[in-house]
Formats: sequence, structure tokens, C-alpha cells
Amino acid sequence: MIEGHGDDLYRYERPIIANFSSNVYDGISNKRLRRHLSRLLQQEDCIGSYPEPQPYSLEKALAGKLHVDVRNVCVTSGATAAIYLIAQTFHGSTSAIVQPTFAEYADAAGMSAHRVLSKYLTGNEEADLCIEEGVHLVWICNPNNPTGVVLPKDFLKRICQENPDVVFVIDQSYEDFTQKALFTSKEVVDNHPNVLLLHSMTKHFAVPGIRLGYITGAASLLDHVKTHRMPWSVGRLASESGLFLLSEEPEPFDLAELLRESQFLRDELRKIAGLEVWQSDTHFMLVRMRYGNAKALKEYLAEEHGILIRDASNFEGLDEHFFRVATQQHPHNILLIEALRQWMES
Amino acid sequence: MIEGHGDDLYRYERPIIANFSSNVYDGISNKRLRRHLSRLLQQEDCIGSYPEPQPYSLEKALAGKLHVDVRNVCVTSGATAAIYLIAQTFHGSTSAIVQPTFAEYADAAGMSAHRVLSKYLTGNEEADLCIEEGVHLVWICNPNNPTGVVLPKDFLKRICQENPDVVFVIDQSYEDFTQKALFTSKEVVDNHPNVLLLHSMTKHFAVPGIRLGYITGAASLLDHVKTHRMPWSVGRLASESGLFLLSEEPEPFDLAELLRESQFLRDELRKIAGLEVWQSDTHFMLVRMRYGNAKALKEYLAEEHGILIRDASNFEGLDEHFFRVATQQHPHNILLIEALRQWMES
Repeated sequence: MIEGHGDDLYRYERPIIANFSSNVYDGISNKRLRRHLSRLLQQEDCIGSYPEPQPYSLEKALAGKLHVDVRNVCVTSGATAAIYLIAQTFHGSTSAIVQPTFAEYADAAGMSAHRVLSKYLTGNEEADLCIEEGVHLVWICNPNNPTGVVLPKDFLKRICQENPDVVFVIDQSYEDFTQKALFTSKEVVDNHPNVLLLHSMTKHFAVPGIRLGYITGAASLLDHVKTHRMPWSVGRLASESGLFLLSEEPEPFDLAELLRESQFLRDELRKIAGLEVWQSDTHFMLVRMRYGNAKALKEYLAEEHGILIRDASNFEGLDEHFFRVATQQHPHNILLIEALRQWMES
Repeated sequence: MIEGHGDDLYRYERPIIANFSSNVYDGISNKRLRRHLSRLLQQEDCIGSYPEPQPYSLEKALAGKLHVDVRNVCVTSGATAAIYLIAQTFHGSTSAIVQPTFAEYADAAGMSAHRVLSKYLTGNEEADLCIEEGVHLVWICNPNNPTGVVLPKDFLKRICQENPDVVFVIDQSYEDFTQKALFTSKEVVDNHPNVLLLHSMTKHFAVPGIRLGYITGAASLLDHVKTHRMPWSVGRLASESGLFLLSEEPEPFDLAELLRESQFLRDELRKIAGLEVWQSDTHFMLVRMRYGNAKALKEYLAEEHGILIRDASNFEGLDEHFFRVATQQHPHNILLIEALRQWMES
């Protein structure tokens, strides 16, 4: 899907002052990275030479940090590129996608001629564990976009173990924004040869302008995926950004505080008549309006308040009443609450 | 092909002082671009927001410059990404590749399950015009890498017109480094609905660290190719680089002088006993050693002289005696000539 994602600020003439539309948190500063890149740009060859044919140095640094071998890491030009790479690797397979979720799994699978099935989790564990005959890939976003839900780790372990011939692609792009237990790369490498974990450096370091993500998994599986990468797949400034971000102490970022603020936002939105707010295990949340539609709300908030939300009506299984917001810093959240109250009351 | 391309400086401990191994010309400065990017990096949102879902602004700027419609331009993350994108778009086709040439056409086609045929041009125009039954795509590099040869424009026009059901992918990555007549984007859009032209911003502006290329062609054909792009395929710093480079006066760059220097280098290399130097229409050239092999020569030049050349033995149709060099500025060319003389005489 090209249009219809969040962070579409470029569509509005009025400057956006508070952006709830992508799941990037504005409480993380990318200033040190920008300063580092500026310094690098004083050297002629930082862009005057080809990047490494594959981003070996960054893969080595990540492997060290994650306590796995370099064969267990595959860096890509963003987590979305990882999704397309995996879909291409298994061209013509059958994919089951746990819905509603990020649209790119279905798009990438469709583009690579997969047969695509939707799977909805019902909460009935025995039924949910059953993977339809013939399915070769299962795509799970965890924490899930747009709901923010994290699946119980024991359930995930069981479903992976009970279906050893199925490859599970588990997208942990939002792994740094939850306190719920998730797979670690080391666990997957040691115990789950049929799991590929996707990771985003975008979300973690709040630099979506630089496309950088990675896959971790068993060497034999990942070797196969890597044969489908083209040379120079990651540019110099992107790989240098990754190396810098790994070498630095992380920016101070208080997850517990962000999740408390997220609960505050949820509580306040629930007080507004006509809004239903889903429980979430992370900092973003799905909201349903009992009346009115998300598209009109989005235009109103952008034009009248300089606030950007994500119209979630284009997620499979959702309709025109749904929108998604990611918690930002407190003053911006207050702006959102007030603006939503005005709209719903009018 | 991941390993075995040029510009593999990272493999050597000794600093490389003269790099003939990629076809990037060191007489072009990227200083203004580096200064521009440094300034951009003072703004938080230059990397703190997502790039455009597709690089619309850059495509619009290119369309204006090339006097075509925006639908006739498809920007990619490097010309190599354009090759893989086209191969994916025509998954499972039959591709004929004019050899010897850049390895990525065959690799990309193979990765997308094409049947891949090699076609060698013999100089017998009638035989060369004949495309084998069942071939859907023909890949031509023009000027060709590694030979530097430009095909006569009339021949190219005829072969495209006489095979209207075949898609011709003509890679003009080196278009700014020859005085021979080539297709313009406007010509292709107006007259050749079955041609896709590939272009590189890397070569033109000597910034291979930033991955940026584009395809031009008929809207109906390119619309189809664009359906195979993923969102956010080009990062913010890359698209901003492209916009800057298009808005600026080009760096002073004297092509006639570079080609004269290239002829000087060819003439000098021909004086060295045991070297055969191919005629070329551009600034790089293919050389065959009558004895010894290119791999050993490459190691010797890197370790003893800090000079990097391209071992060309891995091009289809070439053997261990071939290497490729791209003309650089005069003092570096003298270093190369002297070092080669020493090696061949010893």
C-alpha cells in the first residue's frame, strides 16, 4: 500500500504541530545522530564510495549486541524492506496473516504471488493454534499494529513448536515500547528454527527518515533469505547511522512513563461520549467512533488543529469508524483530547 | 552478485590512493552536496519523519528536467534497485542479456525465476537484430560495462522497432561519460513504448554512497513497474540529495578532457608489452593480459602501490586475464601506467 499509511504530513498545507499518526514517539531526540552524520559529511568518501556490498559491519555490531552469530542477522533498508524480501524469498507460497494488521504483509505476499489467507484470533487458544493445511508462512505483528496487543509468549512458543514446517514471521518493530514478554533474538536462534523476527531501528531511535531494519533467525533460514538481497542494498549514511546508534548509550527514554501517559490518554479518551478505546500493551491505541467517520475527523483535526491522526479504516477487518493514535508527550496529548472532545460534542 | 564488484577498498589494509576499480570519476566533487546535507541535518524532522511513500517530489523535478510527464519517471534506491524491480515485475519471463556485461541483470533475472539466455553481438547487424522466439525482455548496457562500447543508435532504434512485443531494458548509467548518441528519455517516451531506460545519479554526481537511480519510459509500462515498489523505498537523505543535485548548476566537468585523458591512458597501456586494450566510447576500458592473471595483479597493485583495479575475470564470457580500469585524473593515471609496466616486465 503506497497511500493511506500514517505520517502523511506532506498532504496538508497547515503545519502539523502534533503528530499522532505514525507510531514514532516524539520524546526521543535524534539530535546526537544528526550531529554525527553532519560530522561524517565533512569526509569526501562518506558518500563518494560505494557502501559495503552488504552491510557486514552493521550486522557484526548487531550480532555482538544480540549475542548471536553474524549469520543470524540480516540488515535491510527498513523493516518494510525486510517484509518484501521475505515475501520474495518464498515466492508463490501460501501465507496466513493474522488480521487486522499492518497492510504491507498482505501487499508484499500478494506482489510475490502468494496465496493469502486471513486469520483472526478468537481467544480460543486451541482453535487459534490450528494452522490451516498448506500454509507455509504465518505473519504476526507483535505488538500488533494497529491494536497494540501483545500475544502471550507461551501461546506464541506453542504455535511455533506445534507447526515446525511453517515459517513464522514475527514483526517486533514495536518491541521497545512494551513491557510484555517478547521473543529475544537469542531465544529464536537457539530454540525456534522456523521463526524470523523483524526489528525496526526507525521506531527504536525515532529516525524513520533513515530506512533501517533487520531480521534475526536461524542461520539456515536466514542464509536462504539473504540470497535474495541485491548488492549495496543499504546506503552509506544509513549503515553509518546504525553503527553510531549501536555504539552510543541509548537516549534517555522512560518506557514506564510513556506507558503511564498512554494509559492517561486512554482514560481521557474513554470519557468522551461516542469513543470506544481498545486496551493496548504499547503506546499506540485503536479507537472506534460510534458515529461520524475517521476520514472526516482526520481532515478536521489537521485543518483546524494542526493535529495528525491515522485514519485506520483501510486496515483489513476495520471500517470507516476506526482511527489510531500514538501517545506523544503530555502537552500534545492534551491538545488531542480537547480537539476530539470538541468534534464529538459538535 | 554480492562479492566481486569494484570499489572493494574495505578488503585492503593499506590505504588505497588511486581507485580505478569502480566507474566513478574522481574529478567530480561532491562537496556542495555534503554541505547541503549537513545543513539539512540541523532540522530535526529531516530524518525524524517518514520519507514520502514514493519519491514524488524528486520524480516531479526529474520529469520537469527531462521534459516528460511524472508518470514517465520512476525513482529507485540506486540503478541496481531498478534492475531488481524490473526483474520482479516480469517474474518468470524469458530474458536475453547482451554479454559480457554487468552481472546484476542475470542475477536479478535469475532471482525472479526468469529463463536467462546470453546473447553475444557479432557485428553482423542482420543476425544481431534477430531476437530468439519467446524472449520477453532484452537487457542492454549502453555504454556497456565492462567494455565501454556504445551501440550505434540506429541499430538500437531498429532492434526496438522490429521487436515491438519485447521489452528492452537499456541501462544508460554511464550516459554522461560518452559523446556518442544515446536515447533521450523524451525520445523513448514519444517513440518507443517498449523501452525502459535506466539512469544512475551515482555516476553522474559521483555519490555512490547515496543510492539513487531512476527509470524512464512509456507511462503504461512504467505504471506496471511502479506497482511492484514498496512504500518508503527511497530514504529522506537520498531524495533530498537528488532534489539538491537537480536544482544546482552541475559541477564543472569537462567530458572532452576526460575522454582525451582516457585515450592517453589507453595509448600508454598499449605500449606495455603483453597488454591488449579494448577500444572504448567512454572513460573506462577493458584490458587483457597475455600472461599472468588479473587476480594476482589486483593484489599486487593494492598491496604494493595502493592502487585498486577491477578484476574482470568474473564477467560472463571473460576469463582470468581480464581487468577493467576507469580513467582518473592525470597524476593517478601515471601511477597506474608505471605500476603496470613494472608488473608486466617482472
